[in-house]
Amino acid sequence: MAKRKEVKKPVEYLTPEAQKSLADRLARAEGHVRSIRQMVVDHRCADEILIQIAAVKAALNQTAALLIDSEMRACVDTCMGGSSDDRLDRVTKALSAVLKSS
Amino acid sequence: MAKRKEVKKPVEYLTPEAQKSLADRLARAEGHVRSIRQMVVDHRCADEILIQIAAVKAALNQTAALLIDSEMRACVDTCMGGSSDDRLDRVTKALSAVLKSS
Repeated sequence: MAKRKEVKKPVEYLTPEAQKSLADRLARAEGHVRSIRQMVVDHRCADEILIQIAAVKAALNQTAALLIDSEMRACVDTCMGGSSDDRLDRVTKALSAVLKSS
Repeated sequence: MAKRKEVKKPVEYLTPEAQKSLADRLARAEGHVRSIRQMVVDHRCADEILIQIAAVKAALNQTAALLIDSEMRACVDTCMGGSSDDRLDRVTKALSAVLKSS
């Protein structure tokens, strides 16, 4: 999925701090999913596994919220400077992606 | 989190097929989260990243549903054979874990 159509090269809407924070959160989520897989292999109780699955989902929600936050801030910055059409289009696309999946 | 309190050794409620299916799904989810991290590093558009985050959440929901299915089937099997109290307790715990997080 990282390769669908050509890679759009957008305005860099992520500050280095936001990018690092997102990448760190995703790295933790990845390790968390790996540990859940081990719980399945170890035949751990379903309720314990389900609680960990819920925790990963919560972490992904927080990651999505952080991403939307960065996108919105970058949008306001760009729109203050003039060209707002493309930029607003990108924000509404992002919001629509979140709302469709909630 | 794979190590909280002592490891309970439950009745093996997962058939080998269910266990493999769950482990495979979680392995795919892990790879998916890794590819999302790469999207963040590559400054891909927020809407593209959000769609992939939603896809991982959907995959985790399906994994949880499969786990509950296995737990319920094993519960019915055990309860038909007599001792139902502990077993029902485990199922209600599992359902409660899911309901709390939905």
